[in-house]
Amino acid sequence: MANPMADEMRRFKGSDEKNPFEAMSERFDRAAQLMGLDPDLYAVMRVPSREIKVYIPVKMDTGHIQVFEGYRVQHNFARGPAKGGVRYAPDVTLDEVKALAAWMTWKCAVVNVPFGGGKGGIICNPLQMSIGELERLTRRYTAELIDFIGPERDVPAPDMNTNEQTMAWVMDTYSMHARHTVTAVVTGKPVALGGSLGRREATGRGVLFTVNEAIKRYDLTPEKTSVVVQGSGNVGGIGATLMHEQGYKVVAISDVHSGIYNSNGLDIPAVMEDLQKNGSLECDKEADPVSNKELL
Amino acid sequence: MANPMADEMRRFKGSDEKNPFEAMSERFDRAAQLMGLDPDLYAVMRVPSREIKVYIPVKMDTGHIQVFEGYRVQHNFARGPAKGGVRYAPDVTLDEVKALAAWMTWKCAVVNVPFGGGKGGIICNPLQMSIGELERLTRRYTAELIDFIGPERDVPAPDMNTNEQTMAWVMDTYSMHARHTVTAVVTGKPVALGGSLGRREATGRGVLFTVNEAIKRYDLTPEKTSVVVQGSGNVGGIGATLMHEQGYKVVAISDVHSGIYNSNGLDIPAVMEDLQKNGSLECDKEADPVSNKELL
Amino acid sequence: MANPMADEMRRFKGSDEKNPFEAMSERFDRAAQLMGLDPDLYAVMRVPSREIKVYIPVKMDTGHIQVFEGYRVQHNFARGPAKGGVRYAPDVTLDEVKALAAWMTWKCAVVNVPFGGGKGGIICNPLQMSIGELERLTRRYTAELIDFIGPERDVPAPDMNTNEQTMAWVMDTYSMHARHTVTAVVTGKPVALGGSLGRREATGRGVLFTVNEAIKRYDLTPEKTSVVVQGSGNVGGIGATLMHEQGYKVVAISDVHSGIYNSNGLDIPAVMEDLQKNGSLECDKEADPVSNKELL
Amino acid sequence: MANPMADEMRRFKGSDEKNPFEAMSERFDRAAQLMGLDPDLYAVMRVPSREIKVYIPVKMDTGHIQVFEGYRVQHNFARGPAKGGVRYAPDVTLDEVKALAAWMTWKCAVVNVPFGGGKGGIICNPLQMSIGELERLTRRYTAELIDFIGPERDVPAPDMNTNEQTMAWVMDTYSMHARHTVTAVVTGKPVALGGSLGRREATGRGVLFTVNEAIKRYDLTPEKTSVVVQGSGNVGGIGATLMHEQGYKVVAISDVHSGIYNSNGLDIPAVMEDLQKNGSLECDKEADPVSNKELL
Amino acid sequence: MANPMADEMRRFKGSDEKNPFEAMSERFDRAAQLMGLDPDLYAVMRVPSREIKVYIPVKMDTGHIQVFEGYRVQHNFARGPAKGGVRYAPDVTLDEVKALAAWMTWKCAVVNVPFGGGKGGIICNPLQMSIGELERLTRRYTAELIDFIGPERDVPAPDMNTNEQTMAWVMDTYSMHARHTVTAVVTGKPVALGGSLGRREATGRGVLFTVNEAIKRYDLTPEKTSVVVQGSGNVGGIGATLMHEQGYKVVAISDVHSGIYNSNGLDIPAVMEDLQKNGSLECDKEADPVSNKELL
Amino acid sequence: MANPMADEMRRFKGSDEKNPFEAMSERFDRAAQLMGLDPDLYAVMRVPSREIKVYIPVKMDTGHIQVFEGYRVQHNFARGPAKGGVRYAPDVTLDEVKALAAWMTWKCAVVNVPFGGGKGGIICNPLQMSIGELERLTRRYTAELIDFIGPERDVPAPDMNTNEQTMAWVMDTYSMHARHTVTAVVTGKPVALGGSLGRREATGRGVLFTVNEAIKRYDLTPEKTSVVVQGSGNVGGIGATLMHEQGYKVVAISDVHSGIYNSNGLDIPAVMEDLQKNGSLECDKEADPVSNKELL
Repeated sequence: MANPMADEMRRFKGSDEKNPFEAMSERFDRAAQLMGLDPDLYAVMRVPSREIKVYIPVKMDTGHIQVFEGYRVQHNFARGPAKGGVRYAPDVTLDEVKALAAWMTWKCAVVNVPFGGGKGGIICNPLQMSIGELERLTRRYTAELIDFIGPERDVPAPDMNTNEQTMAWVMDTYSMHARHTVTAVVTGKPVALGGSLGRREATGRGVLFTVNEAIKRYDLTPEKTSVVVQGSGNVGGIGATLMHEQGYKVVAISDVHSGIYNSNGLDIPAVMEDLQKNGSLECDKEADPVSNKELL
Repeated sequence: MANPMADEMRRFKGSDEKNPFEAMSERFDRAAQLMGLDPDLYAVMRVPSREIKVYIPVKMDTGHIQVFEGYRVQHNFARGPAKGGVRYAPDVTLDEVKALAAWMTWKCAVVNVPFGGGKGGIICNPLQMSIGELERLTRRYTAELIDFIGPERDVPAPDMNTNEQTMAWVMDTYSMHARHTVTAVVTGKPVALGGSLGRREATGRGVLFTVNEAIKRYDLTPEKTSVVVQGSGNVGGIGATLMHEQGYKVVAISDVHSGIYNSNGLDIPAVMEDLQKNGSLECDKEADPVSNKELL
Repeated sequence: MANPMADEMRRFKGSDEKNPFEAMSERFDRAAQLMGLDPDLYAVMRVPSREIKVYIPVKMDTGHIQVFEGYRVQHNFARGPAKGGVRYAPDVTLDEVKALAAWMTWKCAVVNVPFGGGKGGIICNPLQMSIGELERLTRRYTAELIDFIGPERDVPAPDMNTNEQTMAWVMDTYSMHARHTVTAVVTGKPVALGGSLGRREATGRGVLFTVNEAIKRYDLTPEKTSVVVQGSGNVGGIGATLMHEQGYKVVAISDVHSGIYNSNGLDIPAVMEDLQKNGSLECDKEADPVSNKELL
Repeated sequence: MANPMADEMRRFKGSDEKNPFEAMSERFDRAAQLMGLDPDLYAVMRVPSREIKVYIPVKMDTGHIQVFEGYRVQHNFARGPAKGGVRYAPDVTLDEVKALAAWMTWKCAVVNVPFGGGKGGIICNPLQMSIGELERLTRRYTAELIDFIGPERDVPAPDMNTNEQTMAWVMDTYSMHARHTVTAVVTGKPVALGGSLGRREATGRGVLFTVNEAIKRYDLTPEKTSVVVQGSGNVGGIGATLMHEQGYKVVAISDVHSGIYNSNGLDIPAVMEDLQKNGSLECDKEADPVSNKELL
Repeated sequence: MANPMADEMRRFKGSDEKNPFEAMSERFDRAAQLMGLDPDLYAVMRVPSREIKVYIPVKMDTGHIQVFEGYRVQHNFARGPAKGGVRYAPDVTLDEVKALAAWMTWKCAVVNVPFGGGKGGIICNPLQMSIGELERLTRRYTAELIDFIGPERDVPAPDMNTNEQTMAWVMDTYSMHARHTVTAVVTGKPVALGGSLGRREATGRGVLFTVNEAIKRYDLTPEKTSVVVQGSGNVGGIGATLMHEQGYKVVAISDVHSGIYNSNGLDIPAVMEDLQKNGSLECDKEADPVSNKELL
Repeated sequence: MANPMADEMRRFKGSDEKNPFEAMSERFDRAAQLMGLDPDLYAVMRVPSREIKVYIPVKMDTGHIQVFEGYRVQHNFARGPAKGGVRYAPDVTLDEVKALAAWMTWKCAVVNVPFGGGKGGIICNPLQMSIGELERLTRRYTAELIDFIGPERDVPAPDMNTNEQTMAWVMDTYSMHARHTVTAVVTGKPVALGGSLGRREATGRGVLFTVNEAIKRYDLTPEKTSVVVQGSGNVGGIGATLMHEQGYKVVAISDVHSGIYNSNGLDIPAVMEDLQKNGSLECDKEADPVSNKELL
């Protein structure tokens, strides 16, 4: 299946292996050239508006203070407040955050929502931190950024290793400074605190929409399309479920450790239920193990 | 003269050739060790509190927009608002600004004034920019930082290639946003706008005080001390004049291009008057030319 | 009719004769036990968040100053700004206001509107005060509370002895401090100032809805149900009218002085029209007098 | 010694055994009558301006939440921002806080400093709480009051069971909300954070001044005056030391547990040094034990 | 056609030749008398609330400063924020601006939108100013008025010689002071910046609605109605086009220089297209020239 | 006496009979020419920065509303907040207020205090208004100007027919909006509310200083100088007293009605004491009546 799609993806991928900001800039330059962008506008848009780096002292459970480094990049406000996720990972870099902030500007503009682009990140290993440490890290990061974010300025969202709980902490910290509840300071908060219905499934649903468009281009139908899904969480798992519902044959799916494979198509709802129960993708008579490498 | 002083200076100088932030950190580490600084405090103080990078679009006299990169680093607020200069130079680096912000924290603490440390810089070549371009650059840089600076937060001052006029622009831009005059947002502003009397001569006077202390340590008197001064502006020129007044024998002085030398001591007031008139240090029968390299 | 309803009401009534805050607490305790409420949440929710008592100097029509005592209790903000009426009465107590503020929290949560609970009161006898005195009392009470109320914090509403006019005074006082019109600071304001259509009839309509639900539980129909209404103002009068419209047999109705009774059902629209004209409930051939005591 | 002083003190004391607010009111009424205070002013001044009660949830070291009750009473702002201590004790009552707030108004007016009167308190047992619990209690109490206090509104100070550390927490919490350091929000903070020199000794020195004035009235000299001091902390200990320095014969001193007595006068500097070392007042050959009851 | 309409218009016109504020006042007085307006309300409503005159220094393209005079009059806020255009013309007078502000109050009230009335103007000749001068004039005028306007206070709009671009400058200047985009500070901004769809055509469409109502009163139909249109821009041109579409016979149309006439009706879409192309109304075989005077 | 002084005064007086703003402008033009003022600066400084006219509805003692017209002109802020009095008079004109605001700019600059110039006025007849009406007028005027005045913007002061009481009302109104006492919003307030000692006598003392300088110029001594004083209030009365103390021979003094004259010099302290007692200047054996016209 899908030779031409793979080619196209490989072509993009090439540039992804570079520094992510350079990779973004390269494509932006190409686009600017194609549309004959005014040189003055080009000069402004190829750089962010503002980069902020904060040093976040956190009292760890050991009783000692560890200082973490956090970023927030605001790429462009011309169409409205900046908007973009906050990721927690040991290998977050400024260039990655800058690139993602710029991508948010392009994405918001393309779908014509009145937002600009922002992105944030903290260099930390969330998997090795207690919930208390994560709360203190998130609250202090938010406090350091309180003058830069807000419903009219820059609206954080969940991203890699951050979730509804993270956003609830951001919202509560911001609201305590505002002296009243400010639900609009983040998206991706829990529904009970004013979050949007359907948000959890939104990215997975987006995968479905994208695949639907892609197969049209190659004259395929769901039934004729075999799908391999990398990841089984909010994006991959829900994407797989939705594609399964629409008749796609999902032949393989993976999580962070490994994957399973059945050339006749997996029973995705059953797979997801098992995953929920066992915490990992289990092979049974209907599914063979497959490493993440093989899967790709 | 002054063998031991030279040695000591050379010892410090060694580390200066490294990255300036590492050079600062090395000394801070040594000091922290000597005073047995609490590890938690150490962790917080060896990094700044906040680094901000802004991209400053400026309409140049050509009519086109050029985007400049500017920094403001706020190292520590524990003792009061941050305080520190803004420098304009083509080779400003973030690490240099970070180092200087930290030095401001230590300096303010040592002389027990209620300020923390900050520093800013813009990558530009002020010598090749018109006054209008410099004004637009300064005003936009200030506007970008308006939420971070202020009498209670961070107080800029003149530094390399910035002066009273620069501070007047910063103050006016800040005041227009505040909707009333805020003289306290900068130091180093013109006396007519509320600047301090004696500030222009202050650094040069500090040179005199330092030299006075230094010669005590080596049991010298002004009369017995030959002085070589690098620079003939606000610091070197005024320092030389004041040392001359107190009886020091100033044998050489330089400006950005070259220097002059007279082993019997220069007539500094006359030299300064000539410099004012001619724009450069002139050799005459009483003074021989000396290159900046020879001078050092 | 309605033996079981009466019993149930009596059961609740028992606790009402106690201190109103204790009565509320007793039921809250019962509910907390039934739902196994987390002890930490229980500890927070069984008390208000804040009680404010203000002393309100008012220039009376005699020219002399009288100081009134006023309260505002804010029970909980977790679901949004506090919300609740302000009552004027000689026997308002802090415990009553505390109880009603808590009830507002439960009520807003049960109907899932994004508000918390608040309540206010002033110890005064509004029936013996001139309109000017009431205006000055209300405006000064509002001014004293200006930092605590507001669309994002706590939104007053009319209650016992306060009305649209009172809310208009609150709104105007608040707006003068905000320097622009803030309609959202109160509910229950005049429609001409942005009040909601249908609000005046809302509580009476709520009575109808409640009775509709109640008779379902006891397998009654409107036609088979005789109703006795205590009060003939915004709640009782409108409730009676609406029930009459839906076929209920309203056999008795009262005002503050006395009531009227007709075992075959009263012609409520006619009764209300007469009341409007005469200022009191009039007996005629179709209605016999009944004291408030007998009515209950 | 000092029969007439004792009498006078007893006369005042009589009223002190009543409710403290009534005791204050009684004296205020007497003063108002003596000075012919205008009835309108009298009506306003005999009550506070505002009483605030907050419920303070604190995570205890057990991991569970305990809700404390805290007060702040602002008696009068006519002469400037309210000013007054915050006390922590299990038996703090609203009437006590109201009385002390009023006393602050009278005291500030009498010594003509531009402040009104305020007072606060939290019902808690600080002796049984950890430093972490006290910090969390203080910070949350401050956060709840953030809209009511401030350099222009109401300035807390240490009082019973609160100290420099407590004020540093209040100041830091307030400053984090203000987004810059606000030293003027409290008095009695550590000197290193901008506290006043000499404040710690101020109350003890006030005792000395009062006694100096008192003995003038009874024609005594320090040398002829025997002094019994109740308490040996900031007030009693420093008062005793200063009186000793001026020649008074301090014959007895006590702490919270017991006292010591020497009819020939104690060597107060030595006693204080021992107290510092041992943590309690020690009897030796020069001092006999005395119970607090006997001492009075 | 339209004898009676002409009469009526002439009757109004009479008063228009007076000072515009007196003309407005005269009609207001008549209306107040007719509706028996309360004298206190009358006293307040016959004058504006506030008149502001600012002197606006602008650096002209010559490098020299010229000071312009600008006005903003806010007539009434009782129903909401003031609302009204800003006009640029050499002969703007305060009385004209006052009159127009009052008319805005009456107009907003009559159509029941929650706005009061405002109006502004600058004495300048926009036809002789460069785009840069107009931008600097507009931005400085806005900066001078920043405390008086805003979404909750007073919302400017385009008027004579001001347009979408002018409003974009006002909005950007206001937003830079607010530190975030405030689209609601003006109406009439470009659609790309949040302007309303259909606004450009709105006034012309209003002409159509008015004419539709007018012919009903005189029992005419579009087909039987010959129309003469003065102006061919946003109002006249669009009005003519819309009337043409609905079957009116548009026999003449003019621009600022002259007009064209065809007693059989002009082909308005063709006329407008030619106007767009040529910049002036062209006569051809189907249209005869007519001076503006003749046209009226 | 003093022919040349009279001449000089007459020369200035000439221009005073014109429109006061034109009279001011004429002298400013002369000064600008003499000092060769830069044309751009001249263009900015010959006009005010801002003129505000407010319409002030006041409930009169009759119960009806009267609308007064009030002005505030802010001439220049370059050297600091505007500063200047508010006058109440039936014949206040905008041109008078504009002229006086400009004079304040020149006066503050000449004596080098960091203030600009402002002035205000209300068209009213304070002599025919009750104290309550004046209070309501002043408070509403202040409320209308609340966004324009303030310690950092524009600081009112007493002027013709306004006094300490007026300033206390301004200060209280402003402080209620600021939610805390703002003494710095006015000068000329009562000493008990933070007013400056010596302010009441300041203008009279200024008269003395001026006369002292004047006689130096004409080589006179106080003893040789006969003085005629017009007015016997804060300026004339205190000026006369101070000049009398320094040995001047005060031969005549007047109040609003008439004057008294004694060619040998009046006993000013006695005269002032009588005036205080009787409310008018009394003739006795030592003083003859003189009309105000004769006096001049």
